[in-house]
Order: sequence, then C-alpha cells, then structure tokens
Amino acid sequence: MKITMAENFGFCFGVKRAIKIAENTPHATTYGPLIHNKKEIDRLWRTYDVSLGEDIETFKSGDTVIIRTHGIEKEDLNYLNQKGVVLVDATCPFVTKPQEIVEQMSNEGYDIVIFGDENHPEIKGVRSYAKGAVCVVQNIEDFGSKRLSNKIALIAQTTRKMENYQRIASHLIANYGEVRVFNTICNATFENQEATRKLAQSSDIVIVIGGKDSSNTRQLLYIAKEFCVESYLVEGLEDIDPLWFRGKKMCGITAGASTPQWIIEQIHTAISTLPTQS
Amino acid sequence: MKITMAENFGFCFGVKRAIKIAENTPHATTYGPLIHNKKEIDRLWRTYDVSLGEDIETFKSGDTVIIRTHGIEKEDLNYLNQKGVVLVDATCPFVTKPQEIVEQMSNEGYDIVIFGDENHPEIKGVRSYAKGAVCVVQNIEDFGSKRLSNKIALIAQTTRKMENYQRIASHLIANYGEVRVFNTICNATFENQEATRKLAQSSDIVIVIGGKDSSNTRQLLYIAKEFCVESYLVEGLEDIDPLWFRGKKMCGITAGASTPQWIIEQIHTAISTLPTQS
Repeated sequence: MKITMAENFGFCFGVKRAIKIAENTPHATTYGPLIHNKKEIDRLWRTYDVSLGEDIETFKSGDTVIIRTHGIEKEDLNYLNQKGVVLVDATCPFVTKPQEIVEQMSNEGYDIVIFGDENHPEIKGVRSYAKGAVCVVQNIEDFGSKRLSNKIALIAQTTRKMENYQRIASHLIANYGEVRVFNTICNATFENQEATRKLAQSSDIVIVIGGKDSSNTRQLLYIAKEFCVESYLVEGLEDIDPLWFRGKKMCGITAGASTPQWIIEQIHTAISTLPTQS
Repeated sequence: MKITMAENFGFCFGVKRAIKIAENTPHATTYGPLIHNKKEIDRLWRTYDVSLGEDIETFKSGDTVIIRTHGIEKEDLNYLNQKGVVLVDATCPFVTKPQEIVEQMSNEGYDIVIFGDENHPEIKGVRSYAKGAVCVVQNIEDFGSKRLSNKIALIAQTTRKMENYQRIASHLIANYGEVRVFNTICNATFENQEATRKLAQSSDIVIVIGGKDSSNTRQLLYIAKEFCVESYLVEGLEDIDPLWFRGKKMCGITAGASTPQWIIEQIHTAISTLPTQS
C-alpha cells in the first residue's frame, strides 16, 4: 500500500503562534482548551506546566491566564480584566478580525449574520461583540421566517467551506438591500480543504488526523468522505483499526490545523509498518 | 388557441413616472430616448410635442431638457447645468440609487464592480459616478486576470437576473476580503421575470412585447425561451407572423417595463382575431 500525505495539512499559523505563546508562558493556565487537540494540550501541561482551567471563577488576581486560539466572549474578557488577571492573548488574529468586524458593523447599525456553529467557542466569542441583532446559521433553513434589517453584515466561522458560505450570501443578497460580505474563512483552512479534496480523489482510504471536537478537522473528514467513502478520523494510535487497510492500494493522510507534527509522524509510522502492507 | 397574459407585465413605476413627467412638460426635449420604446416616444412627440435630442451640443441656455429614465453621465449633467439648460429629471429613482451608491463607495475607497452591459445608457450613467477603479462585467470570464483592491462594492444593472448576479457575487466573495453587495435589481423587473417564467412553462408560444433595444424586454425573451422554444419579441403589429401560431394551443403574452398598455392591447387583439385561431 502506498501512503501519500496531502499537499497541505496540519498546524496553521494561529495554532503555531498559540503554542509558541504557551511554551513561552510556563505555569500559566489557559481559559478553555488552547486548541482542539487533547494530546497537544497534555504535552504543554507535562512539559511547560501550562494547565487548563474551565471555570472562570477559579482565576484570581495576579494569575496568568492565556486566552485560547478561538478567543473568548467579550463579557468574560472584561470580567477577567476586572479581576486583575494577567492576560496573555493567544487568540488567532484571523479570529480577532471577525470579532472586530462584528463590533464595528454592529456600531454602524448592521444586523449581523454569522455562518457557523453557535456552540463553537470561536462563534460564541465572535457573536458576543454584536450589540444589535445577530443571527447564527448553519444553512439557509436556519433563517426560518426570521426577517432581518435591510443592511446585513455577514461573516463566517474561519473553518467553514466557501461553497456553503456563498450559498448563505446568495440567499441574503436576493432578500435584503445591502449585504456586506467579509471573507473570514481562513486561508490555511481553505488550503487544507483543497489538498484533502485532491488527495481523497486518488485514495481508497483516507486517514484524517485531529481532535474530534476540532471543527476544521471534521470539515476535512466531511470533504474526504465526499470522494472516498472509507475516510476515518483518528485522534491517536488507539483509534486505528488495522482491518481498514486490508486490500487497500493507496492511503491518503491529512491532518487538521490543530494537529501537531509529532502525532502525524506517530500515525504515519504506525500505518506504514502495518502487517497488512503490500 | 387560448391566450393568457402574464401575471405581471408592462410599465414599471419608473417608466410610468417618466411618461407623466414628459406629458407634464410639453414642448421639452429629452436627451436620448426617454424610454426604450420607439412607439411611445413617437406618441409623446405627436401628442405633447416632446421631442428627442441625441446631440448634447444642440441644447441652448433656457431650453427645457428632460433626463431619460436610464439617467445620464455625470459629466453630461454638469455640462447641461453649465449651459444654463432647464433640467427636468425623469431618471428612475431605482437608477438614481446605484448612481449614489457608486459615488459614495468610490469616495470610501471601494473598487466598484457593476454587473451589466457597459454600452447600456443606464450603466454608462452609473459608472460615471465612480472616482476610482470600476469594472463592468457581464459574467465571471469578463474579470480575466484583472485584480481589484480587497474592498469591493458590487451593484447590478436594474434589469438583470438575480441568479447571475449571485454568481458574480460568489466569485468575488471567494477572492476578495470584503464585498459589499447592493441589491439594485428592480423589483418590477424581478416580478415580470418570475411571471414570464411561469407563463412560458404552460405555453407553446410566447409573445414578448417591447422595444428591441430594451434590456429588460430582452431578458424576458431570454427567460421565455428557456421554457418555451417558440418565443418571439415583437415591437408592434408589423412584427407578427401569423404562421407562428399555426397548431398552437396556448399563447402566453408578456411585455417589458417600457411597453405601453395601448401597444399591448393592439397586439392582444390582433392575435386573438388571427384566422388561424381554433
């Protein structure tokens, strides 16, 4: 079986930057998971004593708190500042941008539409910057019978697929007077998705390595499955089933933007030494 | 043969308004055709002595000049004002709006993209309000390798089809940072198009009545042909060929936004009294 890596995969700029920040801030605590990869978070804790705090009430004045790549809600940011916590901001700049856009457009009187998952921390953070009406949708049906104002600012979760974003934009363009569309989809996401699409077309099995709660990783799995039915999401070695590879000729490997290189290498090695190899 | 009229057809708000203005301004001259319907322009001349002037140099101080529904170029407007001409503005308010948008967006530093026909008077007028870069396209291919600035304001000729506008918008959204999309497609156009679509689906011949240089009329013909191959554009009685109707069971009739009711009635009567009727 031949193993091929996607042309683009793994760590994006924002994740690399956040990990560097965490490594440079030993003994700090991240408010929520720094990135959506448990194994890397575990490594930061073991190697740099960077711990994970989920409850905002546990932080005390003088504590050093790292803000996760996905950003946090504006109210939480203000609360932590009031508490006198030392804040280190590891929010990805590509997430800070939609936060700023939402705040500014809201101030200018635009209703805000966000294409994304309202339960994802990035979107919880971004939407918290809206002052007026804000609507989070995953598809056109989510608008239901809701009527917005005639001036709309539209942004997307950084990890979304462009085709789906265009569909939301088209719907709004036909129904409202002005739609101000900001391309907030991350380029790294886009490149990983394109590379996965290409890879899946020439593979009979695709392994997508990444956290199961990582939005961009799940998007890669979704794209891979469009072209290669046998596509699997694995977080670590324990998820691999050797039976998957039986009779396969071409295994494609890709990885989400929050998947560290050391996990990718572990899995690559494990697959290439499987007894079922031919 | 049964004859069915489209649910919406004929004069739009802007055309009605312009004709009223012309009727209320006898002995004036329009700079260019008031609307794209030669027969109605002829009626205004015969009944109200409203004449047609094509050459801006022929206008003198004190002349009363009517600005056509499609609007005129900003430079021409300034020139006529300088000349001391008495201007009566019959520009459709739905055309004035994109003129204002282009001027304002240009002032705010946006590159302008116009979806429309660069040779149509409406678009010549609208584009003249741009100060910076402006690009007029009929389809995505027209962009070629041209690269615009990262902030784009997009407007459409009032008579364009929404699906095609959405396609242009989608292309820009994927390639630029901010695309500010204004829905400048006229509602009357949209309603006439929808009604034509419905009509054509249940007809075996469609007659589209209107001027051959009328953009919205040609769009209706285009839509009719999608669903009914035997669709014909007629300006007046002289264009009708009785052979078209031989063996037909259902004739749909629609008319462009600049087609007066009296022509529609003439043609309806002519078709319903054709000897080939059954």
